[in-house]
Amino acid sequence: MAGSRMKLELSKVVQGRCRLGQLKEMGRMGQHCLDIPGCLLYTHLGTVPHLTQDTLHTLSSLPTVTQVTLSNIAEHQDVLEEFKGGFKKFAGLHDTVLYCSLHDSAAQSPTGHTTNKTVSVWGSGGRIELTVAKFMALQRTVQPDWYQTMADGETWQTGISRKRVRKSVDRSLAHLDECLLVHQKSQELDGVSVFGVVEGGDILEERLRSARETAKRPVAGFCLDGFQNGAMDQALRSQLITAVTKELPEDKPRLLQGVGRPDEVLACVEAGVDLFEGFFPFQVTERGCALCFLFDITPDPESAAADEEQHTAGETQLNGDLNCDDQTHMTRFEMDLKDKRYQDDFRPLVEGCGCYCCRNHQRAYVHHLLVTNELLAGVLLMIHNTSHYNSFFRAVREALANDKMDLLRRRVLGTVKEESG
Amino acid sequence: MAGSRMKLELSKVVQGRCRLGQLKEMGRMGQHCLDIPGCLLYTHLGTVPHLTQDTLHTLSSLPTVTQVTLSNIAEHQDVLEEFKGGFKKFAGLHDTVLYCSLHDSAAQSPTGHTTNKTVSVWGSGGRIELTVAKFMALQRTVQPDWYQTMADGETWQTGISRKRVRKSVDRSLAHLDECLLVHQKSQELDGVSVFGVVEGGDILEERLRSARETAKRPVAGFCLDGFQNGAMDQALRSQLITAVTKELPEDKPRLLQGVGRPDEVLACVEAGVDLFEGFFPFQVTERGCALCFLFDITPDPESAAADEEQHTAGETQLNGDLNCDDQTHMTRFEMDLKDKRYQDDFRPLVEGCGCYCCRNHQRAYVHHLLVTNELLAGVLLMIHNTSHYNSFFRAVREALANDKMDLLRRRVLGTVKEESG
Repeated sequence: MAGSRMKLELSKVVQGRCRLGQLKEMGRMGQHCLDIPGCLLYTHLGTVPHLTQDTLHTLSSLPTVTQVTLSNIAEHQDVLEEFKGGFKKFAGLHDTVLYCSLHDSAAQSPTGHTTNKTVSVWGSGGRIELTVAKFMALQRTVQPDWYQTMADGETWQTGISRKRVRKSVDRSLAHLDECLLVHQKSQELDGVSVFGVVEGGDILEERLRSARETAKRPVAGFCLDGFQNGAMDQALRSQLITAVTKELPEDKPRLLQGVGRPDEVLACVEAGVDLFEGFFPFQVTERGCALCFLFDITPDPESAAADEEQHTAGETQLNGDLNCDDQTHMTRFEMDLKDKRYQDDFRPLVEGCGCYCCRNHQRAYVHHLLVTNELLAGVLLMIHNTSHYNSFFRAVREALANDKMDLLRRRVLGTVKEESG
Repeated sequence: MAGSRMKLELSKVVQGRCRLGQLKEMGRMGQHCLDIPGCLLYTHLGTVPHLTQDTLHTLSSLPTVTQVTLSNIAEHQDVLEEFKGGFKKFAGLHDTVLYCSLHDSAAQSPTGHTTNKTVSVWGSGGRIELTVAKFMALQRTVQPDWYQTMADGETWQTGISRKRVRKSVDRSLAHLDECLLVHQKSQELDGVSVFGVVEGGDILEERLRSARETAKRPVAGFCLDGFQNGAMDQALRSQLITAVTKELPEDKPRLLQGVGRPDEVLACVEAGVDLFEGFFPFQVTERGCALCFLFDITPDPESAAADEEQHTAGETQLNGDLNCDDQTHMTRFEMDLKDKRYQDDFRPLVEGCGCYCCRNHQRAYVHHLLVTNELLAGVLLMIHNTSHYNSFFRAVREALANDKMDLLRRRVLGTVKEESG
């Protein structure tokens, strides 16, 4: 089986689906492990936007799996082929597990270019059409540790027909079989893990069929695709994911694509998801915002109450609605540091945060960097947001271990009266 | 005298004007020193563009003096006043000497807004008109260790009339006297060093008058302004600077504004300049280029010859002319990493360079970051260019110490047959 070395050890399973554990013996040398639930490290061409690896590695709780997307890489295939050493070496990455996905979840791609035989990705130079042959040639060049197989994921829009959804499941299974066939013949991909892609839009029956059929193939893990639509109700998403994960073998990881908002992460963890993509902190950074939601579930009720009160008092800017603001896409888990209210706010972004930005700078200074378009603003925000998000995932694991998921959910949702979905 | 604590110790003076030494007992606590000839650390709002201070401090040979410009800071005066702690604390700067200049030499400001009583600076929000009262209020808020006094520097354009140049000298002296008057009454500025500004355009007589009159005032150092015009012939610039520095007391530093190209730096050092602004690496970074000129004057002639041959062979892109390319402003001291020739060049930016970028990445990778507009490209280039430029200044000091300025000049100019100017 492809990627048979990777092992998933579960230390706890709550309600038969919500999982705590560790992926072990990952990477070609089997030297890496990753705690689940967890998220991947989001990158462009192998690097976290704005940050050098030196800067990045000043952060604690960093994911051991780095995600790159073919949409970023495909246009550089010639050079990578000439380079020969694989993408990790080309990008100066060491000591990480490289996961290669198809699309970049932080960027919306045009739709309508999928055919029976091809899938398209968009790089800076425009559309690149991939056949399975080209897709697999790319994987041989990139030499990742994991990759998702080619799939037709164009079923995330609302109101898509049952027929189109069925076709997407059929195509994705056909792509999977073709990819596996090439994979097994490719010496370069020996020991590389294949993630099969579960499609099915919002149709339960197709989701189940896709999950069951994919699970029959020799894959090392599963990508749950087509859940990224912001308009999909979290209740429906949870219901579909719960049904899907029930069909998947317990000993293989489930990676959810396109979901990153903290409240949705929590709901999806409870529905059986192990892994998330890490694009959310980047999106927050690009709109000039800083993550500021609470996830500390220390047993001291007094300090917790005080913190919540601080949030209630509106000391950080909270959006009225949990859902994204249609104009700015801002969520209530972040503060908009471009806002004038921060121009004379001399506190750190988040009190008690140990990241470089919070240790060294105040909201007022970052506000001034933002309004004057200074290049350092993105660097500082990316440091803080990456740190905050990864600490949140650590808190999720701790809450799971200590049966405190309810408390964590209340903490994360903060002053919200109604839970979303 | 304002800023009387700072001391200049000269260890060598070549031809009566080219100086090697050290500025000692700088800063309010007198704990800093700076080797001359040297350059300042160029910043926007106190930070090197693209870089955190952590990243910055991985570089060796960093300047101990950080430059900020009033054009960046003026619009934040209200907040700084409220903050009270001064700009260094506001920007999270520690352990540095802060120098506050009037304009940003990397940005071209509109002209024609200077009056008898005011000078204008341009921030991100537009023009800010400064009287001496407002200028000095800003200095009290910023609390720098050094600052240049307000001056009328609009004489750098070619063909400016003698009358206008005379007026600029008169105005600048009047501003200086007014600034000193306010300075001496301001307790907040006790121990802060004042740099008087020498103007005079390209008219020798006015240059001499400006230098002599400024030298009569109780200033701690001198800014040589109005030499930034790219069209001013280096021979004329050298001649004027030589004449000016002869009029200045030997025990005070001379800072040249607006000149940063390596060949011009060498010529100006030989004309008696001690300090330069450090904006050049930033300009190179913003056009997607990497500094690659040679300055190693090791005694091994064989390796030196080999290096020169490498440059001659066009392995790095050299512009045909020493002067800036009118279209791109690129100089022959840098390579344009956006150029297609680097797409499969798997060497470091500069062989043997010890900076983070060169230790970890290849030209091909930085090329790909640039063509896909990745945010890390600017970070990596800024690291390399800052490192390269500061190492160049160290090489200048070593060459001066060892009487090797001719060799260094030949090395820097590389394959150029004719010296510029």
